[in-house]
Amino acid sequence: MVDRPPPPAELPRSRPSGAGYTVTMRVLAPHDPTLLPRLASVVDEARGVVTGMDLVDVTTAGATVDLTLLALDEDHVTDVATALETHTGVRVRHTSDPTFLFHLGGKIEVAARTPLRTRQDMTMAYTPGVARVASAIAKRPESAWTLTAKGTSIAIVTNGTAVLGLGNIGPYGAIPVMEGKAVIFKEFAGVNAYPLCLDAKTPQAVIDTTLAIAPGFGGINLEDIAAPDCFRVESELQRQLDIPVFHDDQHGTAIVVSAALLNACRITGRDFSEVRVVLVGCGAAGTAISTALLDAGVTDLVIFDKDGVLSVKGLPHHQVLAERSNPRGITEVADALRDADVFIGTARRGSVDPDLLKAMAPQPIVFALSNPEPELLPEEARPDTLLATGRSDMPNQINNALVFPGFFRGALDVRATKVTLAMKQAATRAVADIVTDEQRALGVVVPTMFQSRLHNAVAGAVADAWLAEHPESRKRESDLDGKAR
Amino acid sequence: MVDRPPPPAELPRSRPSGAGYTVTMRVLAPHDPTLLPRLASVVDEARGVVTGMDLVDVTTAGATVDLTLLALDEDHVTDVATALETHTGVRVRHTSDPTFLFHLGGKIEVAARTPLRTRQDMTMAYTPGVARVASAIAKRPESAWTLTAKGTSIAIVTNGTAVLGLGNIGPYGAIPVMEGKAVIFKEFAGVNAYPLCLDAKTPQAVIDTTLAIAPGFGGINLEDIAAPDCFRVESELQRQLDIPVFHDDQHGTAIVVSAALLNACRITGRDFSEVRVVLVGCGAAGTAISTALLDAGVTDLVIFDKDGVLSVKGLPHHQVLAERSNPRGITEVADALRDADVFIGTARRGSVDPDLLKAMAPQPIVFALSNPEPELLPEEARPDTLLATGRSDMPNQINNALVFPGFFRGALDVRATKVTLAMKQAATRAVADIVTDEQRALGVVVPTMFQSRLHNAVAGAVADAWLAEHPESRKRESDLDGKAR
Repeated sequence: MVDRPPPPAELPRSRPSGAGYTVTMRVLAPHDPTLLPRLASVVDEARGVVTGMDLVDVTTAGATVDLTLLALDEDHVTDVATALETHTGVRVRHTSDPTFLFHLGGKIEVAARTPLRTRQDMTMAYTPGVARVASAIAKRPESAWTLTAKGTSIAIVTNGTAVLGLGNIGPYGAIPVMEGKAVIFKEFAGVNAYPLCLDAKTPQAVIDTTLAIAPGFGGINLEDIAAPDCFRVESELQRQLDIPVFHDDQHGTAIVVSAALLNACRITGRDFSEVRVVLVGCGAAGTAISTALLDAGVTDLVIFDKDGVLSVKGLPHHQVLAERSNPRGITEVADALRDADVFIGTARRGSVDPDLLKAMAPQPIVFALSNPEPELLPEEARPDTLLATGRSDMPNQINNALVFPGFFRGALDVRATKVTLAMKQAATRAVADIVTDEQRALGVVVPTMFQSRLHNAVAGAVADAWLAEHPESRKRESDLDGKAR
Repeated sequence: MVDRPPPPAELPRSRPSGAGYTVTMRVLAPHDPTLLPRLASVVDEARGVVTGMDLVDVTTAGATVDLTLLALDEDHVTDVATALETHTGVRVRHTSDPTFLFHLGGKIEVAARTPLRTRQDMTMAYTPGVARVASAIAKRPESAWTLTAKGTSIAIVTNGTAVLGLGNIGPYGAIPVMEGKAVIFKEFAGVNAYPLCLDAKTPQAVIDTTLAIAPGFGGINLEDIAAPDCFRVESELQRQLDIPVFHDDQHGTAIVVSAALLNACRITGRDFSEVRVVLVGCGAAGTAISTALLDAGVTDLVIFDKDGVLSVKGLPHHQVLAERSNPRGITEVADALRDADVFIGTARRGSVDPDLLKAMAPQPIVFALSNPEPELLPEEARPDTLLATGRSDMPNQINNALVFPGFFRGALDVRATKVTLAMKQAATRAVADIVTDEQRALGVVVPTMFQSRLHNAVAGAVADAWLAEHPESRKRESDLDGKAR
């Protein structure tokens, strides 16, 4: 599929720009008035970015300084430390990483919504009072939605087989990622998310475990489960459960990409029904994006995976898409990209030669979503390119966190029993419409996540979409009336 | 086994005393200055206890009053309402139950330990920073203990087959009970407890599900799983997992009962090796209590279940105990109780005729633990009886909540990999020793749970017991050193 040899995987060493590799070095040095400026200058020459300097202690033995800086990666940290020791005579005694410190003890906790102060509180929260509530729910399980945390709680379920860009790192490595998601769920949408990182060897084990733990939850967020297992896990769970099941790597990504494409088309005066789209990388995300675009009216979509253009003889999840795509019978990436309007990359850097993207139509739309290195860097792009990537340190970050908190909030609010196409399409429009005309004029295709109106808008749109299809959900009997008598 | 017909199940209607059945009635009445005192007096005559009266509104149509009162049960609430309508001419418009109101929206939440305020926070808590933490844990899973919430988190696992005194009410009905436990874990010992109420039809399904969800947790609290399934579930999980597995209905109860018996023996000048003990009801709790007492040095224990004295031909968990107990070959409860020092009831009210307990030795120790109605009520006891029950409105409440928060706190603190006999016996001594000589002189055999020194003492004792057996646990490499370089 790749027409020319990929470019070297190593990128030129640029200066870091806030993508999260901050370290604090504790350095010892003979004290002199020029020490701090000299340290700063050596770090700068080593292309680190100083973000803080604290004089911790000064004794006759010398000064102790905590030097906090941004670096590109671990090797870069070593380079900076070596430069400091070589050029300033200091000793780097210890390097600590604020990201690791931030994680100490974990990022989440289970808290009591009301404290237990007295024996009377205890008799309500626990025995004997709770027995009445337990009996009421046993008689009418639906009332668990109001009388327990079910109505605001979801499980984040993973088996750790496709975590971030790290691959199959297993359930332990997945824990901090799921805790991070749980924090985002809570902070942006008030959703109580319980990470469950499963030691489950087979898709069936993931299915069985999730079915078993479901009663206490109002929704299931599947996460970082490798394709193709993720497809069966999701469809089987949704078939058997009466709560929404949403594989975020698929649908969260597809919703944000669809929203970004909506705005990119608005900016460049295109219509979904007319654009030529090329997608490279048909795993979980690529499959969901392709499906979403076809469902939204895209007609000319050509999809490539590592074995070339999708074929009706390929993997099961590729067959369906092969039938719905590639109307012009294209076989080579180069041919597909010539005069294409949209490129979407969800494979890895090197899967497409950046030069080929120069043959796209005027004002090309390029969503280079591979992490951590996008298929196309801003400096490699043709100047008229409208670019989005997965990175937080480049413009237009395609980030699922724009969607998943509000999506579940909305679904929980109306006690949706499944995820529907209408809910996903409503979320897409909500994300797209948060971007203002003024922002679009500046090339902005997606909002940033620190806007409560974004998450409220997604939640409202998802809830409204469910209610429009299920008007019977609108009115619900109170679970409190007439309990005691 | 029962020698005489059991007494009638209905108890004489006594006055409620704070055991948690509080209701608020909204009553409408023509307003006159005597209204409030008249309402109070009618409630009093109906043997309710008024705890609050709020004049909500007064219009020409009349007065609206919220009348909060303690009642014994639902029928009693109806009696009080009927009395009010009959004797004061008011209309009871609505009765609400503060315990249900307390449960609205659930009792727990998953909260972020550190808020996400800026993009920089986001790059540490989630991508891209979290990828480094995830990789570090994937390389060394042990570091999940410090870099995630695993080190402070446990799962409360139930299948809802034996919830409180309610029986097999299923996973939905179990949720509020497990949330109540989670609140107690957090409030008294800072343990983050995740309720998982399983839709699991077989013990094997409980085992498989718990094995799958275990990676993120530092311990498993099994709860309200019916005997005999609970025995296999616990032993199989402990065999396969490297974190402590503790079935609270068994061991929490056994620890509190053993502690109470220690104090009761101190008060009455007895020694474990000499007491004659009779236990009636050999389910999960009775089995664990019997085992604990035998392990602690009791030699003369006679155990009865619903088919009579335990036999080596009985249920598997009874066979083991049958071999270790009943040295005098007793077959009848009446014979066993004659001159017995200790009676422990864990079956149900009516399983033993209270009159039989009058034949016990002087200063008999009676732990009548059935809920909600104990085998022996204070008014039925011989005056020299040292009595404990499971009820919060009687003296000496045998309550697992004295133990489970501190037990898990201690186990987590030392990263215990299993529950040992030494840990359980240390917890027993810690609970017993919190009771002061002065309190013992007043007949107190167990502490109350609202003492932080209790939970600290249990945690410390459990941790010390583990460390004494596993000195290699004492020193642990920091997970933070040398990460960045």
